[in-house]
Amino acid sequence: MKDITLKEIATTLGISITTVSKALKNYPDVSEKTKNAVKELAQNLNYTPNSFAVNLRTKESKTIGLIIPEVSHHFFSNIIKAIIDEAEKNGYLVIILQSNETLELEKKQVELLINKRVDGILMSLSNESNNDNHIQEIIKRKIPLVMFDKIAKLAKCSKVIIDDQKAGFEATQHLIDNGCKKIAHIRGPLNPQNSIDRYLGYKKALEKNNIPFDSKLVYACEKVNFEEGYEYAKQLFEEHPDVDGIFAITDLVAVGVLAYCNEQKINIPTDVKIIGFSNWFMSQVITPKLSTVEQPSHEMGKEAFNLLLEEMISRKEDKECNPKIIELPTEIIIRKSSIAN
Amino acid sequence: MKDITLKEIATTLGISITTVSKALKNYPDVSEKTKNAVKELAQNLNYTPNSFAVNLRTKESKTIGLIIPEVSHHFFSNIIKAIIDEAEKNGYLVIILQSNETLELEKKQVELLINKRVDGILMSLSNESNNDNHIQEIIKRKIPLVMFDKIAKLAKCSKVIIDDQKAGFEATQHLIDNGCKKIAHIRGPLNPQNSIDRYLGYKKALEKNNIPFDSKLVYACEKVNFEEGYEYAKQLFEEHPDVDGIFAITDLVAVGVLAYCNEQKINIPTDVKIIGFSNWFMSQVITPKLSTVEQPSHEMGKEAFNLLLEEMISRKEDKECNPKIIELPTEIIIRKSSIAN
Repeated sequence: MKDITLKEIATTLGISITTVSKALKNYPDVSEKTKNAVKELAQNLNYTPNSFAVNLRTKESKTIGLIIPEVSHHFFSNIIKAIIDEAEKNGYLVIILQSNETLELEKKQVELLINKRVDGILMSLSNESNNDNHIQEIIKRKIPLVMFDKIAKLAKCSKVIIDDQKAGFEATQHLIDNGCKKIAHIRGPLNPQNSIDRYLGYKKALEKNNIPFDSKLVYACEKVNFEEGYEYAKQLFEEHPDVDGIFAITDLVAVGVLAYCNEQKINIPTDVKIIGFSNWFMSQVITPKLSTVEQPSHEMGKEAFNLLLEEMISRKEDKECNPKIIELPTEIIIRKSSIAN
Repeated sequence: MKDITLKEIATTLGISITTVSKALKNYPDVSEKTKNAVKELAQNLNYTPNSFAVNLRTKESKTIGLIIPEVSHHFFSNIIKAIIDEAEKNGYLVIILQSNETLELEKKQVELLINKRVDGILMSLSNESNNDNHIQEIIKRKIPLVMFDKIAKLAKCSKVIIDDQKAGFEATQHLIDNGCKKIAHIRGPLNPQNSIDRYLGYKKALEKNNIPFDSKLVYACEKVNFEEGYEYAKQLFEEHPDVDGIFAITDLVAVGVLAYCNEQKINIPTDVKIIGFSNWFMSQVITPKLSTVEQPSHEMGKEAFNLLLEEMISRKEDKECNPKIIELPTEIIIRKSSIAN
């Protein structure tokens, strides 16, 4: 289908392009008769303003980019939902890209979004992201940027985070308060800041309660999935049959641990108490129900978009915008998997 | 930040805009020296080709739109993942919009995507979508369109579907084969085609096995969630304590039924056998593990994108493209919740 242009409407009606354009925008200096003729023809011809041409004029695309590690992750899909909803309310479209947890793809996606001239970028880092040249590139170009959840600690941009260290501390303290004395931690990969911080919170809680830290009780996931939870639980109970508490980096890993314990008739919470992280829907429906740390995914998406919106407006007005950091609260959700015997 | 244009590079170096453009595209008729000077300056000035201008020239946005009812639904988030992955491989970006299961929002999203001049649209209908004027609008404008999962049966466009009636039949037949004689169906809303078809499959299986159909054993969800599964299970066991089989429209609803049965000590599968639909991850980790119908979400996303790609290529070459329908196979996954006593 050939695109209908203002010129064709003008030629058909024998008037100037300017008049057509003014008629479509309802300018007062065009007669009602001409306006009606233009509008009728435009409708009959299925005319829509060429958004590329509009973009060229306004230098705004009304589109933002969102880069996340993995769309089908429950936590991220909740964030996406919140971001799309907020963007929609404010007249923005959202292009979504996945890094699939690799730095290489993440860099490529940043480049794509820069070339696409999006008005702003929201991103959460992949597990591999140990350098931030691509983040610096966004900042250097003064493209509004907000990072959330998995952030680059040193990047000078706005961020929406939780206090992972505090949350990790509280999860571990909860196990200690319920009588656990030998607590294992199935942690995330070595690189991501949130995985490091939850681990540091675990260590700190042991220390505060005079429980000696034993590095052999810490297992590091690579893929952070159900299978790793199951496998590490197996290894853990073979190596340390007297373990009485487990803090897992996410609910998905914790559910893997639960599956192993259920299979081996290791009683939860009598023999071992378990706490996860994120409060996925799943955690309420498995047996036994899983204690966890509530991580406000919807709120995080909403706050991230609104911070970005502020920056996009400042940038449009050529104003400087100082980076802000919003820290959202977490909460321990106590269910059957961790309560005292 | 002011955008750097070819003109500025040309002025700075005292050469023509054409030469700058050719140098950046590595044309052989520009000297290596000039090329290097242009590229170096372009890099120092953070020059990126203006994608709006490029779009205006090529009439392609290399962007597609995806409209789905609900991003955070496990089934849809798997489809999104597959679509983004395929699009990425083929150099397309994906704008994602949610209808939140309302026709009003769905219409608005279609309009937004048409105005944005995306190269093609992928969509799955909301539960409310009982008219297809907005779909006709896309087809009339010859914008490549592929519908998947929840489709408009009569729309003349390509589709990727499963045979919901056959799958519903097989799920019910499986319960009958395992000894069920009084089978309830917790169905989806009255409007969506897939919900109608699964219900028709259920009816057909009863008929084929000479089990009288009883409309009182059919409960219709509105939101198709955990809570409705739980509530309808409660109502069902109060009204028909002798029910011995339940076919639920999705795993999420089935998990609500399971939760009620577990609470009330109604033994699954001894007292009642249950089968869901979709094969969500959750179904493998709950107790007892849930039998279900495997619905190939990843495959569906991949096929839908590739059908769209075919159409976008045809459209670019101004060729007609006949709508295709791809039907993907489903499979009954047998787990503990439905096996014979």
